[in-house]
Amino acid sequence: MSARRPPLVGRFTGEELALAGRNRGMPLEALRHDVTPSGLHYLLIHFDIPPVTAQWKLRLTGLLKHPFEITLEELKTLPARTERVTLECAGNGRGQLSPRYPSVPWLEEGVSTAEWTGVPLAALLGRAGLRSEAKDIVFRGADRGFDRGVEHEFARSLVPELAMRADVLLAYAMNGAPLPPQHGAPLRLVVPRWYGMASVKWLYAIEALERGFDGLQQASGYHFRSAAGEKGEPCTLMRVNSLMVPPGIPDFYTRKRVARAGAIEVTGRAWSGAAPIVRVELGVDGLWRDAVVEERQCEHAWQAWHAVWDARAGAHELACRATDALGRRQPLEPPSDLSGFGNNGVQRVHVTVR
Amino acid sequence: MSARRPPLVGRFTGEELALAGRNRGMPLEALRHDVTPSGLHYLLIHFDIPPVTAQWKLRLTGLLKHPFEITLEELKTLPARTERVTLECAGNGRGQLSPRYPSVPWLEEGVSTAEWTGVPLAALLGRAGLRSEAKDIVFRGADRGFDRGVEHEFARSLVPELAMRADVLLAYAMNGAPLPPQHGAPLRLVVPRWYGMASVKWLYAIEALERGFDGLQQASGYHFRSAAGEKGEPCTLMRVNSLMVPPGIPDFYTRKRVARAGAIEVTGRAWSGAAPIVRVELGVDGLWRDAVVEERQCEHAWQAWHAVWDARAGAHELACRATDALGRRQPLEPPSDLSGFGNNGVQRVHVTVR
Repeated sequence: MSARRPPLVGRFTGEELALAGRNRGMPLEALRHDVTPSGLHYLLIHFDIPPVTAQWKLRLTGLLKHPFEITLEELKTLPARTERVTLECAGNGRGQLSPRYPSVPWLEEGVSTAEWTGVPLAALLGRAGLRSEAKDIVFRGADRGFDRGVEHEFARSLVPELAMRADVLLAYAMNGAPLPPQHGAPLRLVVPRWYGMASVKWLYAIEALERGFDGLQQASGYHFRSAAGEKGEPCTLMRVNSLMVPPGIPDFYTRKRVARAGAIEVTGRAWSGAAPIVRVELGVDGLWRDAVVEERQCEHAWQAWHAVWDARAGAHELACRATDALGRRQPLEPPSDLSGFGNNGVQRVHVTVR
Repeated sequence: MSARRPPLVGRFTGEELALAGRNRGMPLEALRHDVTPSGLHYLLIHFDIPPVTAQWKLRLTGLLKHPFEITLEELKTLPARTERVTLECAGNGRGQLSPRYPSVPWLEEGVSTAEWTGVPLAALLGRAGLRSEAKDIVFRGADRGFDRGVEHEFARSLVPELAMRADVLLAYAMNGAPLPPQHGAPLRLVVPRWYGMASVKWLYAIEALERGFDGLQQASGYHFRSAAGEKGEPCTLMRVNSLMVPPGIPDFYTRKRVARAGAIEVTGRAWSGAAPIVRVELGVDGLWRDAVVEERQCEHAWQAWHAVWDARAGAHELACRATDALGRRQPLEPPSDLSGFGNNGVQRVHVTVR
């Protein structure tokens, strides 16, 4: 049960490989779907998928005027809301870095979009009557294990202003079907615009505290840091980012691409937690030009983009780069971070045209 | 576009990692489900998931008295059959070997069980009237790419005697829902008892040949070999195998397990393509004793087993070992194979009891 793990360079360890086998990415050709088919949605499971128990109830406790428990059946009788939400793992792109932090070695596939149906968290907090002394609200998941030597359940918190937003959901359905075990059955939190760690799965308790939550995954995990020992800045909104469907057809082992010469429509998606996407550029061998960006159809979901590439024989490097309405633009190189969080450096795809 | 790839030792390459991120394993705690939830079923996608086209038809061609095409709507009007089938990737366990063949580096998670609904292949072959000269039947999938320098679509064949078995299905539904894109939508072959490579996804054509099919994935891929250049023996029926749900709770990065002292029920599944499972043994620190094996409930699905482990403080190694009704028994060490096929060496799980 290790403490902080020393950084890695070069090939991947057996531990990283085992995490990659469990924590599935979305194959990039699935970017063709507005809503990711459920079985293709990326997964980040900290510990084990816990079993669903028949006695499950959601408990609301702590600084509340009227603490209560509620069953899934009761939750389903409350007014429901469906939100289409793009979620990205804060560690997406970590595996591209060198040195890299030993954790899930995402290359670029830790992002997906789903339609989540449930009850706005604000409705339950309203019924419970959040007391004015409450400073933080903790969400406890049923998955339990060790990280850096500390046994804990996965738990995260939100400040009351954010928790009361109408679009923060307690979701019991995904893409119109009951929540699957791996996505948090029977109930999960969904926090749009934030990196995925905020959307606690297998939720069983919500607790209002008079102080900031000091759990490991909140106070120490999921922070941007430049050096070990720093307090760092917490990961919050998803940074501006974009991906393309790799054109052509792949080699099985190297996944390198081969395409036929001629006009090729390159398509992809772009997103930012902070604002709509206003521009996507397609880079071909270092030359950038604007792609067509579709209007935002759902406030919390990625936007489609496309561009025509006049592919000529030879070896080429494609790249894509998004800019949001606040002027935030993806960097050409991965930003530096000790734990590999927030890597929104541009995707690069190598294609041989024949 | 490489030819045969030299074997690897030690840490995993970026190519292996990318394949592990795309080709998902079943997290072993999902062994608790008789039928694997769809989004947790393992995936082996040779190339890219192809898009479904509105004009899709299944074509039956070659040595047939009455070649024909059929739409999905027409297929769905034919008498349907549902089969619960355990599928395992022929390369499952490859990543445990050293040296290992550069391919999908499964550790042990490339196995799952689903309920497939569709039309028996025999019904369509009956309608087409297989001619007596037909020696082999090819199944062509729409996924296309390169392997060992050769561009091809994924295609496999079955000899007529096997193709006419009543339990070989053309499936359009999985676990009661339409076939998801990643599992072969709109139509796939399902060949019970065989390793997964026989169950061609994204099926668009069936062709009866007067000779054995010589496609790369049939004539050269998926063969047991002890040295490069050998013709080898084709992979067919799944070897006897078993897995357990790792007891206790994991460390996030190492996945090592910690459990509390006392009686722990260890549960798992066992399967063999050739015959029912008649015995499973649980090994604790090298001492073996019989587990309780449940009766086979479905001819083509894994069987549940369980045993009580009196866990005492300290470090322990658990293992499980199945034997089928033909007397085939898992080896204690992985069997040797050049490409890492058919690794049914016993699973070993390390648990610290506190």
